[in-house]
Amino acid sequence: MDALLNDIATVVGQGNVLTGADVVTRRVDWLSGEPCRAGAIVRPADTDELASVMRLCHAARQPVVAHGGLTGLVHGATTAPHELAISLERLSAIEALDPIGGTLTVQAGVPLQRVQEAAEAEGLQFPLDLGARGSCTIGGNIATNAGGVRVIRYGMMRQQVLGLEAVLADGTVVSSLNRMLKNNAGYDLKQLFIGSEGTLGIVTRAVLKLQPRLPSEQTALVACPDFEALTALLRHLGHRLGGALGTFEVMWDNHYRLLTEESGRHAPPLALGAPFYVLVESLGLDPERNAVQFTEALEAALADRLISDAVVAQSATQRDALWAIREDIEGLLQTLAPLFTFDISLPIAEMATYVAELESALARDWPEGRLVVFGHLGDGNLHVSVSVGSAEREVRCAVEHLVYAPLTPLGGSVSAEHGIGLEKRDYLSLSRSPEEIALMRTLKRALDPHHLLNPHKVLPPAPEDTP
Amino acid sequence: MDALLNDIATVVGQGNVLTGADVVTRRVDWLSGEPCRAGAIVRPADTDELASVMRLCHAARQPVVAHGGLTGLVHGATTAPHELAISLERLSAIEALDPIGGTLTVQAGVPLQRVQEAAEAEGLQFPLDLGARGSCTIGGNIATNAGGVRVIRYGMMRQQVLGLEAVLADGTVVSSLNRMLKNNAGYDLKQLFIGSEGTLGIVTRAVLKLQPRLPSEQTALVACPDFEALTALLRHLGHRLGGALGTFEVMWDNHYRLLTEESGRHAPPLALGAPFYVLVESLGLDPERNAVQFTEALEAALADRLISDAVVAQSATQRDALWAIREDIEGLLQTLAPLFTFDISLPIAEMATYVAELESALARDWPEGRLVVFGHLGDGNLHVSVSVGSAEREVRCAVEHLVYAPLTPLGGSVSAEHGIGLEKRDYLSLSRSPEEIALMRTLKRALDPHHLLNPHKVLPPAPEDTP
Repeated sequence: MDALLNDIATVVGQGNVLTGADVVTRRVDWLSGEPCRAGAIVRPADTDELASVMRLCHAARQPVVAHGGLTGLVHGATTAPHELAISLERLSAIEALDPIGGTLTVQAGVPLQRVQEAAEAEGLQFPLDLGARGSCTIGGNIATNAGGVRVIRYGMMRQQVLGLEAVLADGTVVSSLNRMLKNNAGYDLKQLFIGSEGTLGIVTRAVLKLQPRLPSEQTALVACPDFEALTALLRHLGHRLGGALGTFEVMWDNHYRLLTEESGRHAPPLALGAPFYVLVESLGLDPERNAVQFTEALEAALADRLISDAVVAQSATQRDALWAIREDIEGLLQTLAPLFTFDISLPIAEMATYVAELESALARDWPEGRLVVFGHLGDGNLHVSVSVGSAEREVRCAVEHLVYAPLTPLGGSVSAEHGIGLEKRDYLSLSRSPEEIALMRTLKRALDPHHLLNPHKVLPPAPEDTP
Repeated sequence: MDALLNDIATVVGQGNVLTGADVVTRRVDWLSGEPCRAGAIVRPADTDELASVMRLCHAARQPVVAHGGLTGLVHGATTAPHELAISLERLSAIEALDPIGGTLTVQAGVPLQRVQEAAEAEGLQFPLDLGARGSCTIGGNIATNAGGVRVIRYGMMRQQVLGLEAVLADGTVVSSLNRMLKNNAGYDLKQLFIGSEGTLGIVTRAVLKLQPRLPSEQTALVACPDFEALTALLRHLGHRLGGALGTFEVMWDNHYRLLTEESGRHAPPLALGAPFYVLVESLGLDPERNAVQFTEALEAALADRLISDAVVAQSATQRDALWAIREDIEGLLQTLAPLFTFDISLPIAEMATYVAELESALARDWPEGRLVVFGHLGDGNLHVSVSVGSAEREVRCAVEHLVYAPLTPLGGSVSAEHGIGLEKRDYLSLSRSPEEIALMRTLKRALDPHHLLNPHKVLPPAPEDTP
């Protein structure tokens, strides 16, 4: 690897080939704090330098792992000592903002929050939003097809990308920096790179679609008497708020109770005892009209017994206090450690049964175990946390089996928004058929025949890959 | 081919292998009326039959062309005598509607309008809409990534598809009938089949995402004093109407004048003389609130001189009369025949210059020529019609050159929503780089190494394809 690193240093400069302590002091997983074990970290300045680096790596058959903000949750950026990490941190420029077309052209290493701020400075918004906004990068958001708390209104990252540029395994630069909403000139190549976790190419630049700002946010926490009422409420608000429904975040009672009464971390804004609590937001232009529409929709839901109780935030402070319960991941980790967390999706209609059966199965195998459920219900996405008093590998496998196996007959997914990485690779076949996995392998072989890009991630090893 | 057709008849039944007069009486192009010249038309009943047919075709190296509603505009369904047409017309069932998840599972041969009606019957909407709604099919909408008049609000067909099933060239069935908004379990394979015009697989079923209905439509026709005001108006309405802006359809004065005063086909709702006329719609829940918001937004635009005149439809009849001008394609064809029509996209900021320069270039080469421009401005999509008194092939080529060549430096596209088919195949390289086209070929080779699926469409012949 030394000769190759020397060649790479002539491209990026010696100071941009990190080794030794400069490597291991980086964490590749914020949850576990796992250090980076890459053979070296290479920091190209731009697309051309990255292309040159990849040509060298291709000639040397050197595998690489692209690093963005390293906030992923599925070990998608884990890098082995025989692999190189390619950090996109120096590709950090916001290149162009087109206020007429409503587009922003950025380099891959720009953090999400800087993109949000650049859009806001122009009176627009970039609607993708998630807790890691300050650290995660646009390149990583694209590579993982990030989701977050606005998917019900604006879709996932895939919907926010008009064009992109990527470097292929052999160093070819594929530049598809389309700026139009419509472009049907041949295959939509950017789709290959969105959500494929750096296994088909390394994203270097992107054209993002901006949206008109909706300055008025109405926020409420409501309690639902049963699951039927919960799904009826989702539909009711969809109809009554039209395109304004921006958030529908559900907390099962086990989640709400833990983070309020039980842990004492948050004062409960609504009395305990309901099976479901929902954080609801309506996004609008005119605060007054938006408030009237929102209140009327909630009043109608109360009258129809879709909700049993509600509190509407009257200030930004109150709004933050409601969100703080939903977003208190630290509280979950602290009170339930050791904890296994899952990110799954399934048809909404199947959720109640799924959770009830999971609860029974866990209680059977771990009578002292705890189950906590919350999620983006409108997106079909649940975050399931399980604590059984152990973090052992075999225990984790047993719990994974209980969580994932029932998804297959329901047409659910072992990954809603976090991706597959290494962590869920061996469960991919629970959500995707042999024909689908074979087609994924066909794509991987076609674009990266020498397995140089983020090797071993996403796809389980094929029989022909085993020496 | 006869032996193969006999084998196919044992799969689909003799009555579903059409030959002779049953073939040539079908039109594969509604604009030209070109008859079908396929060796035969095969009509499988379901996915399994199609898979069997494709296995037979694969073994015999028999090329096929999938046929949907045959309303395409780029000769994407043209079928040669040595090719088989595969008609999806018998895959015409609406299989399931999930009102809780807001999804509709349909077979590929279902016409768009039936999908819209099925959604409306449930109090929901399927937002994709275009003039051919009664004939075009969901499979064709997916294969061409259809656009239409609601893209500015809801996106193209790609955004409406949650899952799909396709049959590959070798008869493999890839079933990805995902029903969730979020599913990051491995590569998003459906993206391969959306917009690839039947060259990578044949779509057989799809899960479509439905939206809450927005029953109130406010419609106005406005006149704009110049292009700067036009783009400022687009942005102004985006901000003032928030997510409610549903349509922003621009007619250049040459289009408006032709279809009103000059042809006498429509009474002009606004006086002639402005350079641009825009059909604007706001979609809302509450007719009263929507109307107030819409009127206020237009009044502000008048005060700011973004518009010089406006008429708001006061009834469905008035609304239809406004749309009738914009949608009068027959009027264009009749008054300007022989006519060449184009569907292009380019960054909005570049449009005025592009059209002015095209006008000069045409006037230089054909002083009697006519140029008519309208389009989905908010999407970056213009429909350009050119009449130079001839329909000759060489004349068409010369005009194509004038229309397409200036798009390359602007980052524009030779196809916004119609696709490439045969018609634009030789112009693909004006909109896509050699690296992009090479990657498209890599995909085609990986999925259809024997060139059996809609051969010769989309991609120009590669050197290695020439015998």
